[in-house]
Formats: sequence, C-alpha cells, structure tokens
Amino acid sequence: MSEAFKASTRLSLLGGHVGDKVAPDTLRRPNVQASRSAGDPLILPPGINSQSFKDFIGKAIDIVGEDNVTVINDAQQLGKQSYLDPSKVHDMFYIADEDYFVSSAVVCPRNVQDVQTILRLSNEFEVPLWPFSVGRNVGYGGAAPRVPGSVGLDMGKNMNKILEVNVDGAYALVEPGVTFAGLHDYLVQNNLRDKLWVDVPDLGGGSVLGNTIERGVGYTPYGDHWMMHCGLEVVLPDGTLLRTGMGALPDPSADPSLPADQQPANKCWQHFNYGFGPYNDGIFTQSSLGIVVKMGIWLMPNPGGYQSYLITIPRDEDLHQAVEIIRPLRAAMVLQNVPTIRHILLDAAVVGDKKAYSNSDKPLTDVELDAIAKKLNLGRWNFYGALYGPPPVRDALWQVVKASFSAIPGAKFYFPEDIPESKVLQIRHDTMQGIPSMDELKWVDWLPNGAHLFFSPIAKVTGDDAMAQYKVTRQRCEEYGFDFIGDFVVGMREIHHIVCIVFDRKDPKQRRNAHEMIRTLIDDAAKRGWGEYRTHLALMDQIADTYNFNNNAQMKLNETIKNALDPKGVLAPGKNGIWPKTYDGKAWKVPL
Amino acid sequence: MSEAFKASTRLSLLGGHVGDKVAPDTLRRPNVQASRSAGDPLILPPGINSQSFKDFIGKAIDIVGEDNVTVINDAQQLGKQSYLDPSKVHDMFYIADEDYFVSSAVVCPRNVQDVQTILRLSNEFEVPLWPFSVGRNVGYGGAAPRVPGSVGLDMGKNMNKILEVNVDGAYALVEPGVTFAGLHDYLVQNNLRDKLWVDVPDLGGGSVLGNTIERGVGYTPYGDHWMMHCGLEVVLPDGTLLRTGMGALPDPSADPSLPADQQPANKCWQHFNYGFGPYNDGIFTQSSLGIVVKMGIWLMPNPGGYQSYLITIPRDEDLHQAVEIIRPLRAAMVLQNVPTIRHILLDAAVVGDKKAYSNSDKPLTDVELDAIAKKLNLGRWNFYGALYGPPPVRDALWQVVKASFSAIPGAKFYFPEDIPESKVLQIRHDTMQGIPSMDELKWVDWLPNGAHLFFSPIAKVTGDDAMAQYKVTRQRCEEYGFDFIGDFVVGMREIHHIVCIVFDRKDPKQRRNAHEMIRTLIDDAAKRGWGEYRTHLALMDQIADTYNFNNNAQMKLNETIKNALDPKGVLAPGKNGIWPKTYDGKAWKVPL
Repeated sequence: MSEAFKASTRLSLLGGHVGDKVAPDTLRRPNVQASRSAGDPLILPPGINSQSFKDFIGKAIDIVGEDNVTVINDAQQLGKQSYLDPSKVHDMFYIADEDYFVSSAVVCPRNVQDVQTILRLSNEFEVPLWPFSVGRNVGYGGAAPRVPGSVGLDMGKNMNKILEVNVDGAYALVEPGVTFAGLHDYLVQNNLRDKLWVDVPDLGGGSVLGNTIERGVGYTPYGDHWMMHCGLEVVLPDGTLLRTGMGALPDPSADPSLPADQQPANKCWQHFNYGFGPYNDGIFTQSSLGIVVKMGIWLMPNPGGYQSYLITIPRDEDLHQAVEIIRPLRAAMVLQNVPTIRHILLDAAVVGDKKAYSNSDKPLTDVELDAIAKKLNLGRWNFYGALYGPPPVRDALWQVVKASFSAIPGAKFYFPEDIPESKVLQIRHDTMQGIPSMDELKWVDWLPNGAHLFFSPIAKVTGDDAMAQYKVTRQRCEEYGFDFIGDFVVGMREIHHIVCIVFDRKDPKQRRNAHEMIRTLIDDAAKRGWGEYRTHLALMDQIADTYNFNNNAQMKLNETIKNALDPKGVLAPGKNGIWPKTYDGKAWKVPL
Repeated sequence: MSEAFKASTRLSLLGGHVGDKVAPDTLRRPNVQASRSAGDPLILPPGINSQSFKDFIGKAIDIVGEDNVTVINDAQQLGKQSYLDPSKVHDMFYIADEDYFVSSAVVCPRNVQDVQTILRLSNEFEVPLWPFSVGRNVGYGGAAPRVPGSVGLDMGKNMNKILEVNVDGAYALVEPGVTFAGLHDYLVQNNLRDKLWVDVPDLGGGSVLGNTIERGVGYTPYGDHWMMHCGLEVVLPDGTLLRTGMGALPDPSADPSLPADQQPANKCWQHFNYGFGPYNDGIFTQSSLGIVVKMGIWLMPNPGGYQSYLITIPRDEDLHQAVEIIRPLRAAMVLQNVPTIRHILLDAAVVGDKKAYSNSDKPLTDVELDAIAKKLNLGRWNFYGALYGPPPVRDALWQVVKASFSAIPGAKFYFPEDIPESKVLQIRHDTMQGIPSMDELKWVDWLPNGAHLFFSPIAKVTGDDAMAQYKVTRQRCEEYGFDFIGDFVVGMREIHHIVCIVFDRKDPKQRRNAHEMIRTLIDDAAKRGWGEYRTHLALMDQIADTYNFNNNAQMKLNETIKNALDPKGVLAPGKNGIWPKTYDGKAWKVPL
C-alpha cells in the first residue's frame, strides 16, 4: 500500500477533508503500479490499491449484478468488441495513446436507485466515477474518462426508456440511453411524426440527454438543445435525488411508500423550466456536479410545411459576404433554423475518400479544391438551410433568402428535387426536419483508419470573424499536414465553427500532429479572443485555462461549488478542467 | 450589547464559522432593541448594535460618499418623499405593517468597484445587504428587504448606463439602473427603433436587468427575458468579480493596469450564452448568490411588419375552449409572441375604478360582470395577441388564428384601428411591439388607496388547468371580499397565471385579508400541484416550502451553494426562502 494511498484512506476516515484544504501529500495523482496483481484492471483508480479495487467491484456487483460490471483488465478489450462497443471502453478516436484514457471498469446501473447507491459506494471508497450516456461523444473523447482508471458509469445500457411523449405538451421525458434515432423511431412507430419532430444532431446514434447536457446542437429551429430542455432529475454526488424546476414541487398523488425517483412527477415539470428560486439546471451541463438521470426535452410541433435548400457559394473568399448576408436574416429568424455553411471538403468527404479525388498526400491546394467543387457541382462553400411553415410563409421567406444570397455572384439555388444526386443535400434534407442520419460521419473516412477530433471555437456572425477563423485554422491544418475540413453552424447570434481534424489513428505521427495542432489552435484562438464551446478530454485543462478572466474567477466559482457538493471529488474529476480539492490537477497533464 | 450580539462578534473573530454548523445561540434573529440611541435607524440590522452600525455607515460613506448613503431613521420617511422615491425605502404596496420590511439604510454604489468594496465591508461587519435595481418590483415587495434592518443596496441610482447597443449583434449591455423605458427611448433617440425592439413588461419603469434576473416576462416574441439574456457580470458575496459565458475569456486588448470591471470584454460575450464548462448564469436569478452589475440582453430585430389584435371571448366558461385553442397555436409559434387572456375586470379597471361600475362593496357577481363587459363592448375574457412579419406571413398566420378562435360562438375580432376607443387594446398594441407604457397599472386604483399583491401560479396550457386555477382563485377572492382580477400570460408550454389582488392599503382589515388569502392560495395551489414562479417577500418561505420534493432536496442544494459562496450570509439572507447557516430562518416568520 503506497504512502499516498494510506494517507488518503486516513483522510477518508477523518470525514474526507478538514477545512477547505487537503494535505498536499494526500492529493490524488496518477497511480504508479509496480506490478499488476491478478484481477487488476489495466489502470487502477488513483489512490486505490488492488484489494480496495476488488472490494469496490465486489460491492458494485452486489448492487447492479454481475452482468452489469466489467473490469477492463485486458489490452485485447481495447478497440475490440469486448464490452458492448469499443467506444464504451475508451475513446475510439484516441489522440493520446490508445490505452491512456481508459476506465478501470464499467458499471451499468439498472435504475436511478442503483445510481444513488453506486455514488454512495464511490464516496465510501473514494473511487472516481465517469458517467456517460451512450458513449458516442465522438470527436470529444467518446465514453472515456478524464482520469485514467476511473470507473465508467454506463447510464445508457439499462436506463434507456422513453418515459413519456406528450403530444399536447409537445415534449418527451427520456432516460440517458435514449438516442435521437430511438426517439424519432418512437414517433414514427406511434404515428406521431406528423405531429412532433425531434431535433437531431449530425448523427442519430447519440444520447438525447447526453448531447443536451453537453450543450450539443441540432439543425431545426429547435437546434439549441439546452434551450429546449425542460426539467431534470439529477443524482447529486452524495447520492441525493433532485428534480429541478417545477419538478421540485411534489405531485398531489405523491406516495410516501415509493422511493423518490418513483414518485409521480409534477404535471408542469416539462412545461416550465424555471420553477422558483435560483435556476440551477445550467450547473449540471458540461459539469461534474451531478448525474442527470431524466430529462424533459421539448419537441417541435410539425410546422405545417417544410422545404430544404442548398445555396452554392462559388469562391473561397465569398465566405465573408455569405456570413454578412446570413447575420441579419438569422437574427430576424428569416432563417428559422440552425443552418450550416460547409466547406467543400466536408461535402466531398461524405461521398468519397481523399484518394477518390487526388493522389496527393499533402493538403489539397485551392486549385484542387476548385476542381473538386466543379466535379461535384458544388461551391467552395455550401449553405444548407430550410424553410418551415405553410406555403405562403415559406414563399415569403424564400423570396427574402434568395434575393439576399443572389448578391453573391454565381450563387446557385437548389431544392433536393432539383439535384437528387446530391448526397449531402439529401442527408441535410432529413436532418433539418429531424430525421436522424448515420451517413453524415462518412467524412471521417477521408483518410484510412480515419479518426477525428473537433476544434470548436465560437465566432461572431460577421464576415471578418468567419474569414479570420477560417484562415487561422486552415493555415494551421496545412502546416500540420491536414486538409481543412469544417463548417460554420449558425446559431442566433454566433457561429459554432467546427473544424473536423481528420487523422489516421494508426499513424502515431498523424495522431501526434493532430494533438499538437489542436493545442496550438487553442492558443491561437485565445490570443484572438476566441474560445471553444466544448472539447476533447485531452484539451479540457488547456481550454479551461483560457477562460481565465480576473484571475480565473469563473474557475474559482466552479471549484467552490464542486468542493461543496462533492467534497471527496468522486464525480468526474477533471471534467472540463475542474479538479476537486482532493486532486492534484497539475499531475494529470495529458502526454502528447 | 446583547449576548447574541457578543456571541456573533466572537463568531466573526473565529472566521465566521467552524465546520458546517453555527452554534445555535449565535444564529441571527430579529433584533430586539431596548431603546433607540440617537442616530439609530428605525430597525438595526440583526446582530448589529448602534455603535457597530455607526461604524459601518461611516465606512460606507468613506467608500461611496455622503450623498450616496441614507440612514432610515425617521418614520416620516416611510411612504413619503424622503429618499428619492417611497418604493426605495420599503414596499409601497406593503401587506405586513408599513414599517416591517424596512431597510436600516440605503447605500448607492457609484460603480462596480464600490459594489465590491461594500460587499467586503459587509463581510467584515456581517451586515446583511439587500440589492435592488430600480425598486419597482411592484406586487412582489418593491425595494424592501426580506430581513428588516438590512442595508438596501441601490444599484440603479448611479449605475444606470446603457453601455452598448450593438445593431449588428442585436443586443444591449446594461447596468442595473437602465429601465425598459430608458432603453426604448435610447433606441428612438438614436434612430434605431426601426431596427431593434426591446421587449417590455406591463410597466416601462422597471429595471431591464432586475426584471430579467427575477425572471419577469414581456409580451413580444422575446417575452422570456431570461431566455434572451446573454452574458452577466456578477460580484460574488466575497467581492470577487466574475463574467459569465464568453465573458470569462479575456479580450486580447486586456490591460493589466485596469481593474477587472474596466477590462475590455470578450467580443462574443453578448453573442453566446454558454461559454465553456458549467453554465452558471441561472444560479444568479431569483438568487442571493451574487449581485449582477452588467447584463447583456438580446434585442428583437424589427420583424418587418406588425399587427396587434383583440379577440373578445363572450362567456366566462369560454376560457376553457380558448385555452384549448391557444395551446397548439402557441407551441407551434403560430402565436408568435407572449399573448394574454385578460379577465374582464382587469380591462375594466384600467379605464375606471370600481365605483364607476357599481355601488357594491362586495365582489361583483356574474350578472354585474356581464353588464360591465357589455358596457365596454368586451368579452368576459379578452385575448390580446399580435402578428409579426411582412404581410404574407401575417396574413397566413391571421387566417389560422381567426379560423381557430371562430370556433368560440360569439368571439369577435378587432384590430386597434377598428376600435380606437379601446384603451386597453391601444396599450397592448404598444406593449406587444416593445413600446413601454405606464398606463397599464391603472387597475390598481380599482379601490381607494389601491395596492396590489401578485399571486402567480404556473399552469399547463389546458382548458382544465386554466379553469381550475380560475375557479379556485376566484372563489377564494370572493370569500375574502375581493374581486377576481387577473390574466393568463401564455408562454411556450405554460401559463403564468397572474392574480392581481387589489386591496386598500390604508384599511388594515383588507390588507390582512389579502395577506391571509395569499397564504391560503399558496396552500390551495400546492395541494393541486401548482407552484408560483415568483412572490412577495412575505411569502417567500411558504412558497419555497412547497417546492419540497424528496425532503427539500432542492433547498438543501441551494443552501449548500449559498453557504459555500457566502459563508457569513451577508447577501440577501432569506431571499426566496434560502437562509444562510448564520441565520435562524424560523425566527423570521412574517407576522400576519
């Protein structure tokens, strides 16, 4: 037993902490294992020895049953079909070593009470937990934990029910394992799709709840998922169950004999977000302050008509004018949904790999990009939008949209029926009306063994900002040997600029380049006042450090709340740069 | 010096608290003053003696200057023109005794650094502060503090600048003292009103920032003010300055020689709300966790056309059908804004007092209400809505709206030009396009010395819920001798049902009846699963107690965060039922 481990055990006996500080020598650092004992996982949780780990696993099995606990003790399990799905053991698109961001075990609670019990167990053993919903947080780390050796909490395997779809209220109440595709299918199978749409992100396989609390976006008018959520049920780090908003007010039919999570919920829970007093929901997003076990999400009533379209924008430099055209239209909701401006290579990569276009192993040149655009009958930039409503409304909006974009010389306008051969427009036609797709991610095959990493800075909706971000990111991509592949996702008053860094994950040099490049880009961006909205595990500390206004006042607030709610730091330590006081955050630097 | 005071001083020397508990005998309770010394305020802050109060005031004067400190030491000051405005000393619509919810002093910071310094001073002296913006929180307590004797912090007197109106970004950045009317005037004076609208609540005199962080609503498509805010600057209870969202990322032009609040802000601060990591903004709403000193608010781009309308709904029981018609139209945004269904008496009271309609001193009967409706050419319920956009869009929407409401026998449809004599439609015509009004509150003069108290339960948008809330509240009103005056304010998937309890504040019996009735109504509502979204000082504890799911899990979370951020409990103790650990919450019951 290491000294650090003994000390941390002693600390635990004292009640976890004394005052606000933890003695420096007891802070959690990466485990250094002299040798693996039989039954040890690949990586033990920090500060936990073999015996303690075995005891924890034994108790976890007592809680959820043997079928719902897997120890990751075999390198063979990585990237293979060991545990359900490779993405659930680690990050399928790993940028550190394949065996770096790896859980020691995965536990699958069967229900909310299991989640509560497992959290109490984690506090008892001081074992870090890393909850994930479905594990498809692709480009941002998948199901992998920030702290190697954490116990993954697979919230989606068993807790995957659509608890309610309310047609009159136009909402759903879902568990963590419900996917966008699953929710859409439910609507179709119950003949509700003509009444209600679900907003979907690019891929339909992810968790509705997980995507929403990570503040992911979709492409209908309900694209800001967090804005459209309503009501959470959350397990706090100490195991306490909470319902937010109107859910905090008990339903009159409450039954004292039932456990809290089984209590009938307030009838307004999914109708009104804010409830009474401080509105706490936001602190459970991109957060380690609680595990969201139920979430209400508003569904979009059928708008009474729909028309998707593509506007091709011929020249690279037209991006500037296009964004200037988009800004006022989007703010005024003439552009009703979250449209995208896609770089030619994002479209090209959906229909073919790099070899299909070029024998070059260098970043493609402007001449080559022009040739691809010509071949595909697309622009250097391509704008995918949609109109919602009955014909007179759509016609009025389309007139404005078309007239506005016509200011770009050579811009062309297409409806899907005009160009059935356009694969991407067919996909976007579905996506922008909430029909999930699994085809979009084809672009990841641009390179062999294609993996990707998202660099996602926020931009103002101005031509200058979009061009500046495009130039800086494209230049870095080329410097590191990558093609620029990306798009601009247009919110109400900002753009999520998504740079898709595609690399060959079997090529250590490319992987390292991708990793090094994104670190450089984060600094490039911060120097210009740009910040990212979400990131991969490996970059969380760096990005959190850029949000450092007034001596990291925001981080100090986050840490204060974290330490108050999770004094032992068991829940998702290190997530988005927030290290509990029981951890030595600096010791957890991710190796390049 | 009382024992309790000595104990609390000793406690303070020990650093405010030991562990998580405060010794019971040192908890703050209402001050019992044997006699007032010269210079004492009407009510000393709890646990503070005359000398300590004088010292505090002396230091406050050193910070903000003599002109910005007023001690409330004269009963004459109450309800008179003592300090700027009666509403700033106490609650102009008091329901407890006139001298109950009263500050000991009012301090007006001149700038953000003053706010920080005053907070540090409050921590030093353990004097509770009660911040208010403009003090026009009418119907909910005005500028008065929850804890009598708190020092009012008048954020609006000096900090009243519109810091930016950004036309391209369609937003404003405001200080606490900026009123809706002020922001609207700014747009008009700068010829921006044809580009941007500000959403306004019923009255234009309130603070944009204050209303928004109390989660007030307006009536354009931007009616959910909190949804439309973007970026906060907050002073935490310990005096730390924080910028939320993208504001946490410094602007490249940051100047180390400037204090934090003077630093140039990130250019995306008012463009993107969420930033990176936990989204904390919500915890600063209806809250005692920080003082919001700057706030971004999105302005609505001119929609390119506007048409307000009134639909009169003849019979009392038609409310059911009307709400059923409204629900799908609102969720689908055919009703684009926040419309209202107003009870006949709310409209009647705007144009005349009770005596103008009846000699009765009893609640008016259905027969009398029908007569008033007939006299005013209105329905028993009256629906005020608006259409936004160019003519083809408005026409398409109006067709649907008109056809839908035509299902109500006898419903009539009016544009303002059809009935220029309708005072209320003229007011709503302005309000629903963001032109502030000061006329709406005329209904408070329904009775002599009219004052009002809002009872504001949330309802689902169903005929059953609206009728049930109407019946329960009207019956209680009649039981306590009041006319039912109220309206239904229709959000996306819920109704803010606002019951305006109008009483004669000079009549102790009416005042007591109003107070007793709202206590009864809160219980009536909770028994049916209805909860209020906001309330008067006197009812905060009671309502907070109704949001008690799972052993008050939400309140425990609120308290944990409160105690972590404000260990001495100096900021707005008791606000919305949240008592810091330094207070004996039960000792602060409000007398009937």
